Amino acid sequence: MSETTQQLYNEYVSLMQKAADLNNAAALLEWDHEVNMPPKGAAFRGRQLATLASQAHEILTGKEMENVLNALSGAEGLSDTQQANVRISQQDFEKNRKLPSSFVSALSNQTTLCYNAWIEARQKSDYGIYAPHLAKMIELKQEQARLYGYTNHPYDALLDDYEKGANTVMLDKVFEDIKRLLPPVLSKIKDATQVSDECFLQFFGKQSQWDFSVDVLKKMGFDFEAGRQDFSEHPFTTSFAPTDVRVTTRVNEDDYAALLWSTIHEGGHALYEQGLPEEQYGLPLGSAASLGIHESQSRFWENCIGRGIDFWKHFYPQLQKYFPAQLGKVNLDTFYDAMNRVAPSLIRTEADEVTYHFHVLIRYEIEKALLGGELKAEDLQAAWNDRYTRYLGITPPNDVKGILQDVHWSHGSFGYFPTYSLGSFYAAQFYAKAKQEIPGLKDMLQGGEFAPLLQWLRNGVHVHGRRYTSEELCHRLTGEHLNIDYFMQYIDAKYATIYA
Amino acid sequence: MSETTQQLYNEYVSLMQKAADLNNAAALLEWDHEVNMPPKGAAFRGRQLATLASQAHEILTGKEMENVLNALSGAEGLSDTQQANVRISQQDFEKNRKLPSSFVSALSNQTTLCYNAWIEARQKSDYGIYAPHLAKMIELKQEQARLYGYTNHPYDALLDDYEKGANTVMLDKVFEDIKRLLPPVLSKIKDATQVSDECFLQFFGKQSQWDFSVDVLKKMGFDFEAGRQDFSEHPFTTSFAPTDVRVTTRVNEDDYAALLWSTIHEGGHALYEQGLPEEQYGLPLGSAASLGIHESQSRFWENCIGRGIDFWKHFYPQLQKYFPAQLGKVNLDTFYDAMNRVAPSLIRTEADEVTYHFHVLIRYEIEKALLGGELKAEDLQAAWNDRYTRYLGITPPNDVKGILQDVHWSHGSFGYFPTYSLGSFYAAQFYAKAKQEIPGLKDMLQGGEFAPLLQWLRNGVHVHGRRYTSEELCHRLTGEHLNIDYFMQYIDAKYATIYA
Repeated sequence: MSETTQQLYNEYVSLMQKAADLNNAAALLEWDHEVNMPPKGAAFRGRQLATLASQAHEILTGKEMENVLNALSGAEGLSDTQQANVRISQQDFEKNRKLPSSFVSALSNQTTLCYNAWIEARQKSDYGIYAPHLAKMIELKQEQARLYGYTNHPYDALLDDYEKGANTVMLDKVFEDIKRLLPPVLSKIKDATQVSDECFLQFFGKQSQWDFSVDVLKKMGFDFEAGRQDFSEHPFTTSFAPTDVRVTTRVNEDDYAALLWSTIHEGGHALYEQGLPEEQYGLPLGSAASLGIHESQSRFWENCIGRGIDFWKHFYPQLQKYFPAQLGKVNLDTFYDAMNRVAPSLIRTEADEVTYHFHVLIRYEIEKALLGGELKAEDLQAAWNDRYTRYLGITPPNDVKGILQDVHWSHGSFGYFPTYSLGSFYAAQFYAKAKQEIPGLKDMLQGGEFAPLLQWLRNGVHVHGRRYTSEELCHRLTGEHLNIDYFMQYIDAKYATIYA
Repeated sequence: MSETTQQLYNEYVSLMQKAADLNNAAALLEWDHEVNMPPKGAAFRGRQLATLASQAHEILTGKEMENVLNALSGAEGLSDTQQANVRISQQDFEKNRKLPSSFVSALSNQTTLCYNAWIEARQKSDYGIYAPHLAKMIELKQEQARLYGYTNHPYDALLDDYEKGANTVMLDKVFEDIKRLLPPVLSKIKDATQVSDECFLQFFGKQSQWDFSVDVLKKMGFDFEAGRQDFSEHPFTTSFAPTDVRVTTRVNEDDYAALLWSTIHEGGHALYEQGLPEEQYGLPLGSAASLGIHESQSRFWENCIGRGIDFWKHFYPQLQKYFPAQLGKVNLDTFYDAMNRVAPSLIRTEADEVTYHFHVLIRYEIEKALLGGELKAEDLQAAWNDRYTRYLGITPPNDVKGILQDVHWSHGSFGYFPTYSLGSFYAAQFYAKAKQEIPGLKDMLQGGEFAPLLQWLRNGVHVHGRRYTSEELCHRLTGEHLNIDYFMQYIDAKYATIYA
């Protein structure tokens, strides 16, 4: 590499890392907001976050960045890694600059209004309070799609923010498969002997729940020297560097499921963040590939591993020691069946592995129709309730348990939901491959030995950052593109034993 | 105000508040560093802090700020408050721009080196490891004094950063008074019947210590809706806005004093921060007047109130309920005497109200000599130990209990220590005035009614921000400038009853 190219690349790295510092500081402010902040702190916290975001945005879309990216375009002597960083940053830059700052600021203001309206609407369980603000948000998202540009459907332009390469053609096919393949599974389950989850619905003391969750995270490979777990109302994972990754969980002393699956799910996200290469801090190759791939990691651990019998052959005796009164007489099979109970429900985040995807399907259909202009915000409540009745056979009794349950739209996050289903399907496909490639995996899981599995995910997914798109990564790891058959095989095999 | 002046002022406010957002975000990152951060997070946290600081510095010293301040200089129609903000910001700007960015960055690098050397030197209790780095730091501080400019002594230039208006002429006089007035007090105490602090040195369970400290903070008027208390190794107060002020404390289950005085001391700082006017966020009038005035608030609460008999007439029965086994049979007088025990000691932060000022005096003499070039870093250990022997009659057995005990110099904070003594003296003077101006204060304190006292401090100190210098503020509040006689009267009266 010539000295000038090296200098230019260093300058590029320096700008990117400065922006990352600001964004990571913002992430800490947001974490603190959910975990620690006293209530009156909200107003100034809001403006502090806005300043950090705008300072980062200025760097990422500024003249200096433009010049250095232009100068590096086609420069000789960059390594493969360096070229990949520059190429992806150029794409990001081109995309970011399509949004004028007046639009960015209008979107940010509408997000505040819309979020506040959502909070109030939830308190009163009245979608009508939220509807006009959401309508304005939808207009802005349609405008954003126009600004980004698209060839087929406006929704494609927004999907790209969360899952580069995903589009409505691909997702239509995925959700058609869901509509075709899952109902027969559900009806077989419905006809079988039902399983009970009552062993979860006992009193479980908070401290013991917490202690066991820490044991599990440690065993999974979460590095508590480079992260921590806290409580928050809604569990989430955030990261300020691969060396400081935070998960949160929630506790319900009358339902152990609340904490247990949150911890394992967020633990999966966190292992991904801790596995990103430190030396690529602030650069595309130091960032997660996509939301779908991120979700593949959380669902891999939560579902494929954490709701699997092998995992519990190791952990259940320990859990029984924490809760002898509650679980001492519950055998492992009963506990295993309970955690895998399938039943249509109203709340997405509490759904089982099968019905979950109808929740996503409903949101996908609605988002696509909203962006396409075929559905209006004012008609959303009816559209939502109709679909829950049609797909899941149950109708929300009120808006909090229906149209108002998710925060995403109030944040302007249209195109986010499909990544939840993609994550599950990638996870099942990765898990099938892991079983092939890691000899003795079953024994390892039963023995509480997770390091080889984590290393396999590190090598196959984590270390690459954004070098590959989701589909490239999936193909490199499994030899084929996303294939929902793996999920169906996983589901069929699992529930055949539970619902015999 | 003309429309242009209004526009200019708004632009000034916007720049200042942007810088404040960045600095407040940095304060949260530092708080998190002390309270939550996992150990491996340190490296990236360091660079994130550096980026936030440099972005704030760029705004505060940039061309935009210069232009708007110049344009506002002498503009017609600004209110008194607006004029005060602009005037102080102009002074700050002129001062900040005297330091070239190459110097700022050299100082920042040396701070990192020096701090790391201090940590290592403490681990090995070996001042020799620290000395060469400190020598280089002193050179930089001498350079900083030259860059700022001074007429009398280089130390004056540095003092100005912490206590505008303070200088060596004023401080020489203050510390001459200490050297003259305190030894007779000490020798009288030495000749009297000694009091014991053994009632503090029992086992006090952590949770009850914590619970009582929260009760005390609430009674003092600390708003837990606009702040919180946490544990950290070294207690401190920080603020991200008047609506989010955080104190930390530390606990020693074998010595209740560790937590109790930390909480009340930091609580005093925190009440000041919560009392700053919200509408002046980011502006001089929304910031604390000086370190000395800040310390006056913490010491007012910790010493004048918190180590006073009236305060404990209210709180002691409650404390006894928390600790019946430990304190049930200890009467209030014994407890009161114990908390006011005077005895020369080696560690500044654990010193009593009388000997404390010799610790500061020693540091003042050393700092002044270092800046003046009469003392070298390599001779510091001897200079330190000699003075402890001379002034306090005890000699540090090792460097950790001697020259390595304070972090300040490793941060380059030369000129900070004197504000601790000034704070005590201002506190005593303010307290004398409060007793005059608040009818029935004694009864209020005995009844646990602190709101009128807090309101008096709010009106006299908090709401003014940096509108007045320390000395102006003192004069407005008490009718005279700093007068150490009030402190001496306070000390004489207090110890006359304890050491009869």
